[in-house]
Order: sequence, then structure tokens, then C-alpha cells
Amino acid sequence: MIHGSAPANVGMALADVDTPALLIDLDAFERNLNKMQSFADRAGLQLRPHAKTHKCAVIAGQQMALGAVGVCCQKVSEAEALVHAGIKDVFVSNELIGAPKLERLAAMARLASVRVCVDDAGNIDDLSRTAERYGVTLGVLVEIDVGAGRCGVADTGSAVLLARKTAAAPGLRFLGLQAYHGAAQHIRAYDARRKAIQQAAARVGDISRMLSAEGLDCEIITGAGTGTFVIEAKSGVYNELQCGSYIFMDVDYGRNRIENGEFFRAFENSLFVLTTVMSNNRPGLAVVDAGLKAVSVDSGLPLVHDRQRVNYVGASDEHGQLDTAQADDALALGDKIKLVPGHCDPTVNLYDWFVGYRCDRVESIWPIVARGAIR
Amino acid sequence: MIHGSAPANVGMALADVDTPALLIDLDAFERNLNKMQSFADRAGLQLRPHAKTHKCAVIAGQQMALGAVGVCCQKVSEAEALVHAGIKDVFVSNELIGAPKLERLAAMARLASVRVCVDDAGNIDDLSRTAERYGVTLGVLVEIDVGAGRCGVADTGSAVLLARKTAAAPGLRFLGLQAYHGAAQHIRAYDARRKAIQQAAARVGDISRMLSAEGLDCEIITGAGTGTFVIEAKSGVYNELQCGSYIFMDVDYGRNRIENGEFFRAFENSLFVLTTVMSNNRPGLAVVDAGLKAVSVDSGLPLVHDRQRVNYVGASDEHGQLDTAQADDALALGDKIKLVPGHCDPTVNLYDWFVGYRCDRVESIWPIVARGAIR
Repeated sequence: MIHGSAPANVGMALADVDTPALLIDLDAFERNLNKMQSFADRAGLQLRPHAKTHKCAVIAGQQMALGAVGVCCQKVSEAEALVHAGIKDVFVSNELIGAPKLERLAAMARLASVRVCVDDAGNIDDLSRTAERYGVTLGVLVEIDVGAGRCGVADTGSAVLLARKTAAAPGLRFLGLQAYHGAAQHIRAYDARRKAIQQAAARVGDISRMLSAEGLDCEIITGAGTGTFVIEAKSGVYNELQCGSYIFMDVDYGRNRIENGEFFRAFENSLFVLTTVMSNNRPGLAVVDAGLKAVSVDSGLPLVHDRQRVNYVGASDEHGQLDTAQADDALALGDKIKLVPGHCDPTVNLYDWFVGYRCDRVESIWPIVARGAIR
Repeated sequence: MIHGSAPANVGMALADVDTPALLIDLDAFERNLNKMQSFADRAGLQLRPHAKTHKCAVIAGQQMALGAVGVCCQKVSEAEALVHAGIKDVFVSNELIGAPKLERLAAMARLASVRVCVDDAGNIDDLSRTAERYGVTLGVLVEIDVGAGRCGVADTGSAVLLARKTAAAPGLRFLGLQAYHGAAQHIRAYDARRKAIQQAAARVGDISRMLSAEGLDCEIITGAGTGTFVIEAKSGVYNELQCGSYIFMDVDYGRNRIENGEFFRAFENSLFVLTTVMSNNRPGLAVVDAGLKAVSVDSGLPLVHDRQRVNYVGASDEHGQLDTAQADDALALGDKIKLVPGHCDPTVNLYDWFVGYRCDRVESIWPIVARGAIR
């Protein structure tokens, strides 16, 4: 659906942007992009950032221009939107079940390098048949459940069977292992987070050696998120990182602790929801125009970024309530306020446009081409 | 943004619909539509359903064909999307602050009958100036905060001042009072819910009489939601109902109790998220392809509709976890399952298309034209 024009124009003052709007602080964003790519380069690892965070072909292109080998997507429709916008290397880091999705995946492989995960033997047959019909080769990674308790296989025997079957299947190329530990990303204490990833790496290393012994070398062992990538990188097992949220950060990742006990601040908050005070009749309360449809609250309420002692304390569908009782400066009707989303990925999925700014002036309007691409 | 094709075609079997998809059980939906309109007709009240629930011009048109006098919207962009699709009477039941929004509102009044809420004197001046510039008349309702603690004015003096100012302002027509009690909708116990609405009605009745004494008659006193409309209807104060969720219902409204202590079941669940089992390697757990981006969890997790003793127990961005340990029938990879969303409004906002079905066959594909229209 086209939902009308963007909330801003390039060149406009930030104060004139209509709200709610999804802002990117371009300076902070670019520092985040560079920092992660430099880390991967120094560690000698491939970076394949997760595009489920931004769903934007412009950002995917920037990541690849800096050195990323491609992007990850979580849905075939998400990958398709990016491929149609010119991205040439996509990894659907997820299982795809059902003919409509496999058809789209195989057709997409005519336009770009395409890889996907499997955790089921029947699905390998389906993928193989579809790839053959389109005359394409799909890269395939066997997903290992390393503790997330979600997709993948947990035992070595199943992993070997699936790898063997993939390697023998026409139209498919066995590439290695997907081993993302989603559940570990938000373990707050560093030691517990490190232990979870070290256990994952040990298990994946064992499987990889077992496969090599059968002549099935893993070209790629991929995983890691913004909460854990340093640990995967040190493991000596993973050779590809698929972090996504580092480009924006959010409140939730900021609650993690690093090795010295401090909060995780390696990346800067670069993503904000700009909102306006739309009702202001009660002492100690201001109502803003960003509620549940403008900022995802699944990982907690957003934080107020640019006002001291003002807290976002309640969200309904189209309204947010700010507690201003302790505010340093009174808020006025029409004042615009930046919120840091509790969780960046589902918040981005609520918008059609990123509004990038530098020095309080709008510099970019980027379409979120894969917004709502959930199939 | 256009996010590609719809997940189904008219005529297709429901089993062939790609997932996640947002389904409407058309029989249940039509019964819900008729039931609310019949209630309003019998009570001698106007029905102006809230379109923030469906964001769909087709549904707005159906509601008006049955007798609704128009629709409510919560954002000017939402109203604009419906007006551009042919809806001729929209009430933005909310305050609009800032030039971009007022320009759109006034311009829209050239195409449709348009009304809006106010709770601030300066905003009345801004609306008046903008309406005059476009040569249009905007209907204006003064919003009374009847307990939601959100927008509106709480005291009679302020309400009278705002009404007087509106009535005197060029380009504006004072229509009456907006008095929606959002916070009361989900009070579980009937008596407490009734008391909250009776207090609201008493206060609004007082203000209305005070205004009449000044020669400012309220043509419209509007409010009520799916959780409370029977109480507003009986009050003798409200003459317009603006319920929205009744067309779909959701898990959250189903937790309310009615007068006899039973759960609220006046309307049927007609909205479902169709999802597919995409990973199934662990006993007692099935992973489905609908997570946080496919079903809003702000009011709790969705319920599994069509399987006994299967529970949706966890959501991540693109995955849902089903506890199948006690299931009557085992789930297989590829099985499709209907979920009842915890909260219908923000769930609808995640989709571009409604897939309507009857007797397990797809009968309608309706665009959600105001999806993402949050400005």
C-alpha cells in the first residue's frame, strides 16, 4: 500500500518534520556502520548484516559498499523486496515452508545469489525440486539449534543427515551451518552471555568437524547478533557475523552489561521516533502522538531522548503519555520530542520512510521497501 | 510502500493461502456488523464506527451502507486515505496539532464532511485560520476527559470556554462533545465498568446543560467503545456511538465480564492471523511463521483458535512458539493454524490486505488503505 507522502523533505529543518516520524541520526548511524565493519575486518570475518532490522535497500547497499558480503533476511518477501531494489546477495536465515515461498525463492535466484536454511529432510526435497525447475542453484545452510529453542536441529546426527542430503540434492549447494543464538542476545550479565555462546560454538565446532570427516566441509558457519558478536568472533568457529541492530541500537540492547560490568555502549542510538505534544491540559502529564502504532512496546516502553526527567509511561493505540512532573523544562503544546524505541526491528516495520538528518537538517528520505514483508 | 501481491486470490481454498495472512471470517464479521447497527437503531442512536480498527474503505462503506452516519478516524492521514477511497463523512476523534496536519484536514473538507476534536484555545485559532483559508467549514467537538487521563479538558469551565470560542470562530461549527472513556473499555468487572461510564455520562450531561444555558446546544455527544456501549446507550446523554472493535473482537475484549458474570461474547471472533508450522523438530514445541511483526502482543499473546490444547507461548520478531505437549492432534510441518490476536487494532496495522473467506474459500481481498497512516 502507498500511504501517502513522506513526513519530510530533504533540506527541511528537523523541527518542521511532521510526526510521528522515524529519524536516523546519520552521523551516529555511519559511525555504527563503520565500527562493526572495522571489527569484522580486524577479526578476519565476513560481515553479512541482518536486513530485518532496517528493511531498506539503501542501507543494505551502504553496508555492502563498506565491505559486507551480502545481507541476511528473515522472510522470502523481505529478501525479494531488497533484490528487486538491486541487492545481489541475500541469505534467508530461516526455514521456508510451502510452495508459494519456495517458488519465490527459486525465482529470485535468477536475479541474485540466494541462500536459505533447512532443518527438515522433506523441505530439502521440496527446495531441490523447485530449484531444478527454475534451473538455479540455491545455497543451503543446515540450521543448528544452539539454545534458542526455535528452529534448527539440536543433535549432531540430524545435522549430519541433513547436510549429507543437501549435498546430494540437485539444485542445492551445501554451504555450512546457521547457528544463531537468539536467546543469548539479551542475557544481561556478560559471563552468562559468554558461556551461552561458548557452549554454542563448541557444539557447532563438533558438528563441523564431524561433517569434514565425511568430506562435507562447511564453507560458512554463521551466526551472532549485536549482543554477542565479540564472543562468536573469538570462538574460532564462526567465520560470518550476521548482526543487525548495531546500526540503530535500542533501549533493550542498552540494558546488557559488558565484561567490566558497565552497560553496553559500543554503538550509539541513531534511531528515534519523533513525536509531538498534542494535548497538555493536566499538570505533570503531556500526551504525545506516538502510541502502539508508532513504537513497538514488546521489549518495554521507549525512552525520552532529549528531555531530562521526562518519562514515557503509557502507550495506547495512537497516544503516548509522558510523565512531566519532574521535568527540568515545561513542555508546550506542539513541542517535538525524540523517543528511543524499546525494540528497533518491529518499530521500523511500522514505518514507510526513514528520515535521515545531520545538524538538525533533513538529508535523506529512504523508503523502507520491505516494511510489512512478513511472508 | 507497495509490498507485493496479496497472500491469496479470490476463489482459492483457505488451505492454499500463503502465510502469515490476516483473515476475516465473513459470516461472523457480517453478523457483528448487523448486530451493532441493529442495537444502535433500536436505541435510537447514531452509529459512527471507529475506522482505526480496520483502516479499510471497503469496510467503512459496508458500515455506512447498513446505516452508520460516517466513520471515526484517529489521525488525519488515516481519514485522508478513506476519503480518497470515497468515504464522505469522517470525524477525526482526536486533536490535530501542527500546520501539516491542519492543512490536510482543511483540504480534505473540500471532498467530504469533516469534523475534529479540540482541547486547546490556541488550536481553535489555528483551525479557524486554516479553514478560512481553504474556504471550508470544519465541524468541531470539544473533547472532555471523562476518566481516560489522556486528551481533553476535565473541568466544566474549560469546556464552556472552548465551546464558546469554537462557536464564535470563523470556519468552524461547534457540534458538541467528544467523551470517550478509553480506560473503561477493559475494566473486567461489569459493575466497575458501568460505574465509570455512568460517572462520565453524568459529568458530560452537566456540561451539556451548562452549554445549553448559554445557547450552545450540543448536536452531538459522542463516545463509547465495544466494551461499554450498552452503558452509554442507556445513559440518555450520548446520542452517537463510536465503537470499532466489535467487527472483529479480540482476546482482550473477550476477558471482560457482562452483567450476569459471564464473559463478553456479544460479538464473534471474525479476525484471525493464519500461520504455518515452519519447524517441528522438538517434542512438545512447534514453531510458526507469525511473530511480533505479524500479531501485536501489547495486550497479551494470541490464542490458538482451531486446535485443542495447543498454546501460543512465545513470540520473537518473525517466529511464534506453540506448546503442543498436551495437543489432541499432533501438528505437522506445513500445517496452517488460525490465531486470534490479543489486540485487533495494532495487528491490522501490520498488514496490507484482508483475506475474507466463507466456507473455507477466499471470497474477498480488501486493501487496508490506511495501514501505517499514523500522522
